[in-house]
Amino acid sequence: MPKPPLPSHLEAVLREPNPAVLGTVRPDGKPNTVATWYLWENGRALVNMDMGRRRLEYLRENPNVSLTVLDRDSWYRHVTVHGRIALEDDPGLSDIDRIARHYTGQPYAQRDRRRVSGWIEIEGWFAWDDGPWT
Amino acid sequence: MPKPPLPSHLEAVLREPNPAVLGTVRPDGKPNTVATWYLWENGRALVNMDMGRRRLEYLRENPNVSLTVLDRDSWYRHVTVHGRIALEDDPGLSDIDRIARHYTGQPYAQRDRRRVSGWIEIEGWFAWDDGPWT
Repeated sequence: MPKPPLPSHLEAVLREPNPAVLGTVRPDGKPNTVATWYLWENGRALVNMDMGRRRLEYLRENPNVSLTVLDRDSWYRHVTVHGRIALEDDPGLSDIDRIARHYTGQPYAQRDRRRVSGWIEIEGWFAWDDGPWT
Repeated sequence: MPKPPLPSHLEAVLREPNPAVLGTVRPDGKPNTVATWYLWENGRALVNMDMGRRRLEYLRENPNVSLTVLDRDSWYRHVTVHGRIALEDDPGLSDIDRIARHYTGQPYAQRDRRRVSGWIEIEGWFAWDDGPWT
């Protein structure tokens, strides 16, 4: 698997507000996937979760994650980054607001729940930008 | 996590040719995710891979998978199914042709590579059909 940095045309895909799916491993060794917003900043991917999400527990036990980003403009282009996630509180909701603005143009609507940010340090990547998804 | 069968409005999402991401666990305990075509048939999800894919080795060691399907028509609707995958050869390419027709209207173009099908038996599911992806 190639190491970062990613080629600029793939970083360009990551910088768009594209749909993405985060993969984690549960303590029982089974995979979990969930659709997520993310923000690509300075070669890292930022995600953000409600404090009550069970996957926060999984991530504290096993911080390895995989994030697949789908290009909205092309069924045949997707980028997956692998790395370790570092969790930190988002007390002022500034991270989720930044992410929400990227996707919706508005700050995050729900203000009454504590949230946690996760910074994904990229260790490797994989991309497919030609041909079907199989 | 709720058990199958899924409610009919979520099965309807799964029956569409929607973008999807398959999550697996590698032998080193790290997660892997990859965009994939799939086909929902009789309460199971069918995927199909080139015989050379490394994730076939992962799946023989750990057949647990997670598949997240994104509704093309709504950013705020996604369905994840968890289950075990059973692999079998696709000697006549009939499975990949059925999947390709579902997404493209055409049989699968590449005819010179052996392929493997994976049937995902659903053990549980999770859906989000209201509000942001966080």
